[in-house]
Amino acid sequence: MEGIFITIEGPDGSGKTTQIELLREYLEKKGYDSVVTREPGGTVISEAIREIILNPEYKEMSYMTELLLYAAARAQLVNQIIRPALIEGKAVICDRFVESSAVYQGIGRGLGVSTVYEVNNYALGEVKPKLTIFMDLDAEDGIKRKKNQTELDRMEQEDIEFHKRVVEGYRKLAELYPERIVPIDATLSVEDIHSRIVSEVEKRFFK
Amino acid sequence: MEGIFITIEGPDGSGKTTQIELLREYLEKKGYDSVVTREPGGTVISEAIREIILNPEYKEMSYMTELLLYAAARAQLVNQIIRPALIEGKAVICDRFVESSAVYQGIGRGLGVSTVYEVNNYALGEVKPKLTIFMDLDAEDGIKRKKNQTELDRMEQEDIEFHKRVVEGYRKLAELYPERIVPIDATLSVEDIHSRIVSEVEKRFFK
Repeated sequence: MEGIFITIEGPDGSGKTTQIELLREYLEKKGYDSVVTREPGGTVISEAIREIILNPEYKEMSYMTELLLYAAARAQLVNQIIRPALIEGKAVICDRFVESSAVYQGIGRGLGVSTVYEVNNYALGEVKPKLTIFMDLDAEDGIKRKKNQTELDRMEQEDIEFHKRVVEGYRKLAELYPERIVPIDATLSVEDIHSRIVSEVEKRFFK
Repeated sequence: MEGIFITIEGPDGSGKTTQIELLREYLEKKGYDSVVTREPGGTVISEAIREIILNPEYKEMSYMTELLLYAAARAQLVNQIIRPALIEGKAVICDRFVESSAVYQGIGRGLGVSTVYEVNNYALGEVKPKLTIFMDLDAEDGIKRKKNQTELDRMEQEDIEFHKRVVEGYRKLAELYPERIVPIDATLSVEDIHSRIVSEVEKRFFK
């Protein structure tokens, strides 16, 4: 597979969407056809799974069901969109990927990071991101930025302690896998964050 | 867990529903509160997942997505219905369970039986059936019995070769795990099949 696969992680409200658009423009200028996608979702089937996962009425959903649904949505996205694009040599930027499961289900829900990676290995096969940008933002600040939203989904309804565990989880993963997961202070300016991301991309793909 | 957990497997049209009802009556007479459930489904969330799995429009669904969706629906059924019932000492009869994934996804789709059991171990935890009845019927006969149905779901639309692999798969599993999976000739009379099932249940639970 000749393409470039980059994922962007971080709490809601950390500015992922803006940075993804800037990164896409940068990669297009570098000559890469780019595919931007998001999780959970990105295909008709994955979006249908997403609706189940995030349905605020499904309060009785077991944590293992949640983990397996995220993995199922991911398997569809990988097989239908990401793998074919990488084989064609395209750049793929994914808004959230397996590290979201590692922190939300593995740490937030307490299922354990190794269980999450084991289950997800079935979904991913050999399709693994070479670079994961973690937009590092305290949970309180992420929630503040999202507070104008009227309706919260099943994950967003979790309390602040859950979201703090998630952010701490991302920081731990970035320490464990520094060659692949790069934390960037999400309180910096949009331009500063973008140039740090570009510098990480260049180190890995264009040097 | 003090309850009794029995699953019934076999191709569509093999008479599972009739035998489950007779088995339920038998277990009630033995003094067991009984819970009858089915896969994929059995809870609101699992039924929502079932609708995605069986939707005839989702022809692009990857086999791994299918496997993970079945496992997700199963995890919800186990955690919400089966485990609590077994803890209360009830009898649980499930129409299809993990062996359906082993043969449909593991053998029919070619993902491999060991991969299916590995993924499903996350869904099941310690909740494993002590007895699995396999209603043994040639694929052609099963399809004949179902042919009056007007609309076929995504699994039923598979060709005869697929359904033959499934039946062969069940037979192989029954050979591999004879202490747990018991094949019964589904062309016998309803009464004969029922008394064979009762004899297997008595051997395992009431002697």
